[in-house]
Amino acid sequence: MSKDQSPRADRSPHALAPWRGKLHELIFEADTPAGKAFDVLLIATILLSIVVVIIDSIPSVEREWGTYLYVCEWVFTFLYTIEYALRLICLGRPLRYALSFYGIVDLVAVLPTYLSIFIAGSQSLIVVRALRLVRIFRVFKLAHYLTEADALGRALRATGKRIVVFLVFVLAIILILGASMYVVEGRTPDTDFTSIPRGIYWAIVTVTTVGYGDVTPQTGLGRTLAAVAMLLGYSIISVPIGVFSVELLAARQRITTQACPECSKEGHDADAEYCKFCGAKL
Amino acid sequence: MSKDQSPRADRSPHALAPWRGKLHELIFEADTPAGKAFDVLLIATILLSIVVVIIDSIPSVEREWGTYLYVCEWVFTFLYTIEYALRLICLGRPLRYALSFYGIVDLVAVLPTYLSIFIAGSQSLIVVRALRLVRIFRVFKLAHYLTEADALGRALRATGKRIVVFLVFVLAIILILGASMYVVEGRTPDTDFTSIPRGIYWAIVTVTTVGYGDVTPQTGLGRTLAAVAMLLGYSIISVPIGVFSVELLAARQRITTQACPECSKEGHDADAEYCKFCGAKL
Amino acid sequence: MSKDQSPRADRSPHALAPWRGKLHELIFEADTPAGKAFDVLLIATILLSIVVVIIDSIPSVEREWGTYLYVCEWVFTFLYTIEYALRLICLGRPLRYALSFYGIVDLVAVLPTYLSIFIAGSQSLIVVRALRLVRIFRVFKLAHYLTEADALGRALRATGKRIVVFLVFVLAIILILGASMYVVEGRTPDTDFTSIPRGIYWAIVTVTTVGYGDVTPQTGLGRTLAAVAMLLGYSIISVPIGVFSVELLAARQRITTQACPECSKEGHDADAEYCKFCGAKL
Amino acid sequence: MSKDQSPRADRSPHALAPWRGKLHELIFEADTPAGKAFDVLLIATILLSIVVVIIDSIPSVEREWGTYLYVCEWVFTFLYTIEYALRLICLGRPLRYALSFYGIVDLVAVLPTYLSIFIAGSQSLIVVRALRLVRIFRVFKLAHYLTEADALGRALRATGKRIVVFLVFVLAIILILGASMYVVEGRTPDTDFTSIPRGIYWAIVTVTTVGYGDVTPQTGLGRTLAAVAMLLGYSIISVPIGVFSVELLAARQRITTQACPECSKEGHDADAEYCKFCGAKL
Repeated sequence: MSKDQSPRADRSPHALAPWRGKLHELIFEADTPAGKAFDVLLIATILLSIVVVIIDSIPSVEREWGTYLYVCEWVFTFLYTIEYALRLICLGRPLRYALSFYGIVDLVAVLPTYLSIFIAGSQSLIVVRALRLVRIFRVFKLAHYLTEADALGRALRATGKRIVVFLVFVLAIILILGASMYVVEGRTPDTDFTSIPRGIYWAIVTVTTVGYGDVTPQTGLGRTLAAVAMLLGYSIISVPIGVFSVELLAARQRITTQACPECSKEGHDADAEYCKFCGAKL
Repeated sequence: MSKDQSPRADRSPHALAPWRGKLHELIFEADTPAGKAFDVLLIATILLSIVVVIIDSIPSVEREWGTYLYVCEWVFTFLYTIEYALRLICLGRPLRYALSFYGIVDLVAVLPTYLSIFIAGSQSLIVVRALRLVRIFRVFKLAHYLTEADALGRALRATGKRIVVFLVFVLAIILILGASMYVVEGRTPDTDFTSIPRGIYWAIVTVTTVGYGDVTPQTGLGRTLAAVAMLLGYSIISVPIGVFSVELLAARQRITTQACPECSKEGHDADAEYCKFCGAKL
Repeated sequence: MSKDQSPRADRSPHALAPWRGKLHELIFEADTPAGKAFDVLLIATILLSIVVVIIDSIPSVEREWGTYLYVCEWVFTFLYTIEYALRLICLGRPLRYALSFYGIVDLVAVLPTYLSIFIAGSQSLIVVRALRLVRIFRVFKLAHYLTEADALGRALRATGKRIVVFLVFVLAIILILGASMYVVEGRTPDTDFTSIPRGIYWAIVTVTTVGYGDVTPQTGLGRTLAAVAMLLGYSIISVPIGVFSVELLAARQRITTQACPECSKEGHDADAEYCKFCGAKL
Repeated sequence: MSKDQSPRADRSPHALAPWRGKLHELIFEADTPAGKAFDVLLIATILLSIVVVIIDSIPSVEREWGTYLYVCEWVFTFLYTIEYALRLICLGRPLRYALSFYGIVDLVAVLPTYLSIFIAGSQSLIVVRALRLVRIFRVFKLAHYLTEADALGRALRATGKRIVVFLVFVLAIILILGASMYVVEGRTPDTDFTSIPRGIYWAIVTVTTVGYGDVTPQTGLGRTLAAVAMLLGYSIISVPIGVFSVELLAARQRITTQACPECSKEGHDADAEYCKFCGAKL
């Protein structure tokens, strides 16, 4: 979020042409009144366009208001296309923006409508515009609440790889549970387990404790296996929660401390009297 | 809970008339025997009136005892209306009470019965009277258990905004999952995903691991998407739990901390009398 | 678990008669070879009697082996009745044992079979004998793993009241959600919400994220309310987990410390140098 | 993972014959280019053979490609059989490997195909080959992410026994809930609770909050009991999560702790070079 696209430092848009500088200020900045008004308007139209797509998908609404909503969708899409073009124009390094997180989201938010000409129904994917709402954080200074979310971010990154290892482990269990269930129940009449992929689907539904009940065991042995899967899913949820909580605690404590006056290294405990890196008095 | 409505400090009811002071003591105070008896009686009638509404909604009970229960409801409502009027009368600043949490709850607890004259069935909302039971904490001195719940409250407030950011993030995911499912399964015969709102409903049911099973995917691609949604919901529950636990720990430790007057070190327990680092009296 | 029934200190059974002392040692003690053998045998018969009840409830098994299993049940029950009588006889203060946790469990474990003479089917409650298995901890010295479970116990007790307050709060929400759903969906044809109790049942199923799917909303408004209930249930689970974790951490840290040599009070931090109660050097 | 099977220290394979040393290097080592290539190839074939088994279980795929997939399965199995034999040959102490975790997994990964000659359908168990993927950690040096997972491992081991005690307790509750439900609902027409084992299955489905909905109560009393089971399952999940989190925190802190040689104080971070209390070199 902090890696915003203001490439002023390298090749400033102001140096290129005055109108491009003005445009840059309007579109990219959120500090000037005009820039803030632009962002608020943008967020409002995003919300509106999402609502249009959602209610357009309801058959009874579509029958009555379909044409109007169809026009709305295209108007929004044209506006966003123009906005995207302007963003590219007013920047000194357009490619840099185009490849940034915001740039990709802005492009992807426009594509589904055009795609719908070729693939019917794809305009529903317009809801990816929801991702553009991340701008809300910038406009309403919500980033403030993310300063500690920095600790959150660091904890997530520190936990990430370990959670992946955990997920690989869980997926291996799910694979084995799903296949075992197929072996156990695959031959009973009226079985729900007609293939291993369905067994795997069942295992995921069960271990994550979602439990739709659309695929369920019928035999005693199958039910016993299901009971094992459930107790497993109920127990292992402790692992990611514990890992993340402890990591978050560590990330938070690391923040709360000062830098050493001599070696300027951080990461001391709150009750430390001497720098743990160079031995200087803190 | 602590911001109770005893406006004695500003315009005391005792100064207005003796009977109003007595009434105030009876209705608002819980320390005198009469006041406590009043509150206990009040809580008993609240519980009773809730039970009346609940059992009145059962068709077989309604058929047999409907008239009696109907009378009961109106008796309770009249009593509460009188009580509400008395509360307003015996206070020097009735508006202040009327706009407080307790005042609004007391009013709302009375309205559904009157509303039921115009809108059939609305008397079931009488169960909002359950909120009046918050008085229990005052009467039975349960507030004692909330002193540390103060730490709980502070942790909740500190976490609140971050949980909201988390919920916004989760809702964006839910929106995208729901719309994607509509794109994937919306055209299969006998589909459960007849519109994006139903897709969103499915996504919420799945990500929160509730899993009713009333809306489920039928195709392989849909099942794969559902599996992703489930694993996501199973994983991200770590975030609010971790954030809240760490915040609660911090709020708890902050309470128990004061600095030593001699060595000015912190980190002492709430029940410590001497500094644990230099032995000086705290 | 530690409050076992050996009232040797007050009116010792050894003082009464030698055979009663021997019997006491056999039945109540787990340290002597004979006492341990008795306990192991007891646990084995408990497990066996539970298995008998469970498989006897399966219609096909009951048809074939019903008579044998019926006899087994009565044999076990007679043995336990004799054992209970012996326990009462060999103690100096039988009433004290009869009213202890173990005494009540031992009695309750015997009753269902006798009850089944009057109330058909009640013998299934024999599974309460599972509670007698708590003895396992004593026999196999599992209490060792409970020394820190002492921290667990203290954390549970410290959390207990706050969890109750939390549950009361959750129940109030459930009540209001259930009644609201009845108001919203109670009049639609083929509704699942035929009364407020069913609405409350639905609310519990939803907030706890169990989600059977036997009672589900049919209208758009109902689904929206259900979505709120789900997100609520998904979020508030953080509260008991956080409260318990923090309390457990506190209970654990309190244990890990030594007593003050002067005032012999405990509860010092691991890094404390001076007693925080009397200021003496630790 | 660290207890790998390189028995070089005792009876080195190099001492036996040069080709066996080479073979050992190729098959068991992951540091040489050849050894790494072998492991990567192995992992690829494992993934491929799992995919083959999974898609072979889909009836429509089996009808069309059944013969080819059947041949593939046997080819993979023969290759693994040869590989297993080579592993045994090139080691000085083959039995040691055969009884290690890796050895048993390697054998078990081969058996299902042979078993399928005698027991139809058992080849689906080939997915246990997924366990062979643990090698991934070795090849891609993921063990690095497990150094702290060492803390995870220690926490899991420290928690293990307490979690078992917790599970025994939960199972006792499940047993009693299941039997009670059978007593309550077993005689109603069209009941789902036809035996105690089905009641136990229901109790597990409910307490773990999975909630399939294939076995649900029909009567008011049954629903009340179900509500208790749900609230119980929702509450007690705090226990394993809290126990594991606290244990993980302790395991993590224990790692990062060494005493200062001068003031012998503990509590230093893992990356500390100087004592944070007296500034002495650690």
